[in-house]
Amino acid sequence: VADDDSELAFIDWLRGLAGRHPCVPLGIGDDAALIRISGAGDCLVTVDMLMEGVDFLLPDTDARDIGRKALAVSLSDIAAMAGRPVAAVISVVFSRQSGREFAERLYCGIKSLAQEFNVAIAGGDTNSWDGPFAISVTVLGQPTGAGPVRRSGAQPGDWVMVTGELGGSLRGKHLSFTPRVREALVLRQSVDIHAMIDVSDGLAADLHHVLDESAVGAVVRAGALPISDAAHHLPGPQSALDHALGDGEDFELLFTVAPDDGQSLLKSPPFELRLSHIGEITHDRTCVLVDDAGHQSPLPPLGWVHRL
Amino acid sequence: VADDDSELAFIDWLRGLAGRHPCVPLGIGDDAALIRISGAGDCLVTVDMLMEGVDFLLPDTDARDIGRKALAVSLSDIAAMAGRPVAAVISVVFSRQSGREFAERLYCGIKSLAQEFNVAIAGGDTNSWDGPFAISVTVLGQPTGAGPVRRSGAQPGDWVMVTGELGGSLRGKHLSFTPRVREALVLRQSVDIHAMIDVSDGLAADLHHVLDESAVGAVVRAGALPISDAAHHLPGPQSALDHALGDGEDFELLFTVAPDDGQSLLKSPPFELRLSHIGEITHDRTCVLVDDAGHQSPLPPLGWVHRL
Repeated sequence: VADDDSELAFIDWLRGLAGRHPCVPLGIGDDAALIRISGAGDCLVTVDMLMEGVDFLLPDTDARDIGRKALAVSLSDIAAMAGRPVAAVISVVFSRQSGREFAERLYCGIKSLAQEFNVAIAGGDTNSWDGPFAISVTVLGQPTGAGPVRRSGAQPGDWVMVTGELGGSLRGKHLSFTPRVREALVLRQSVDIHAMIDVSDGLAADLHHVLDESAVGAVVRAGALPISDAAHHLPGPQSALDHALGDGEDFELLFTVAPDDGQSLLKSPPFELRLSHIGEITHDRTCVLVDDAGHQSPLPPLGWVHRL
Repeated sequence: VADDDSELAFIDWLRGLAGRHPCVPLGIGDDAALIRISGAGDCLVTVDMLMEGVDFLLPDTDARDIGRKALAVSLSDIAAMAGRPVAAVISVVFSRQSGREFAERLYCGIKSLAQEFNVAIAGGDTNSWDGPFAISVTVLGQPTGAGPVRRSGAQPGDWVMVTGELGGSLRGKHLSFTPRVREALVLRQSVDIHAMIDVSDGLAADLHHVLDESAVGAVVRAGALPISDAAHHLPGPQSALDHALGDGEDFELLFTVAPDDGQSLLKSPPFELRLSHIGEITHDRTCVLVDDAGHQSPLPPLGWVHRL
């Protein structure tokens, strides 16, 4: 947690350093940045880096899964802005001893997901060294509709909703998840999404990102959380609810909409993936969890990031 | 060299795997890719990764210089396409022990160059691990004029020209070079550049990239090469000419133009930076070096990449 605090402080410093620029309507602080390339077109961009020993262990993890995930996390960021991913550029540094087969499996994993989402692999930089393996994937995307859906648009009274199920991603979903690109585009066409983020740090932590950026609070109903089977089957002292609230790397969409829109989504679901109404946005800038008996407790931005 | 061969073979494999995509008019194989984000706008993108122990040593190298260079190499790629750099996204993995000061100096180095070229720092991903330090910078740019200047446009009879001076970059220029963004834009406005590349692998190696992509050959006059002072002052058995031909990381522009355009550039130089006419493009697909006595010898794609 101390690490996270200093990381957040550093990112704040970086945000200040980066400053504002007329070609970047949205910069550091959301899931992706929006770049104004010329008078004609805007473009979403996001980058994520995965590292051996931090995000996965070798040789325990198949290089195909690593490649797939390296692209998937960035696609999830574009989805969180309701964007359409277009192309990826990839920089990689291999361990000198890792060999050609590892490299080919890695890129095949990237390619399979790229094809699934019609994303071009446009370029990259391939290197090797004596250190551990790392991969950085930058994805460019096209904004849709009235532009990117930001974290900052949540309004008091909004329903808080989430796709899919939460918790226990370490049991497998953290590698095999499907980025919710299609669902985000369908949601955007169906309703007016006020704010959206992908659940990468953990539901509570990511909800807090939305609340902070929107300057609002929330009430979350524990009984309404879509807790995954995996969250029930993890060893250790934490409850399944703890896992659903705190586990990272679910890569589901957390979003807020006006109650009417929320009701219409539940009444006529626009896709098969589960959709849950888990709470409401409040004026009061606190985040509260309500259990089945009606007891309220503060919901801090737990979110122990799921790193090995 | 064996390493380079297998790397080239791997990049060929990757180019095949990446395939063609309607949103990527130019993909792997040039200095930057061209992405069609929507009907309206195209965007250049390039990525480069720098690694501790490969591109620089720590703590010998100032983190400011590393940050500056990490952005500069990507700006040089955009320059090589005659593009205007717009924004950068940066992924970094720090050694856990490297500390906040190192990180701040790194980003200050990036920021200073970004300001010099009016490039926005739009986002990033900051991480730490037990491995060595690495940084990956993706730069987005705007194509200019009739679109990117490619490696593949050299025509028999063209003059081969180069900016600045060559060789010996390890003595300092490899860290402190100025990417030739402004010069590329001025050249593009002044003449019809047929082909262009930045000299990162070494003059001979990068000239071969142009020749290969353009399916032509070249004659280079040794006496016309702008050999840097640094190339004369390196220890070791190689001559200054060897260094000018083979050293990497000069980050000058190597380009070809019709003879008339070449003559007009020499007659009325569009900028103060030295411009040299070093040879001609030929139909015959060989690359030949001519010495001051008129003796010809093959000029292979030497280019020992300047890595520590």
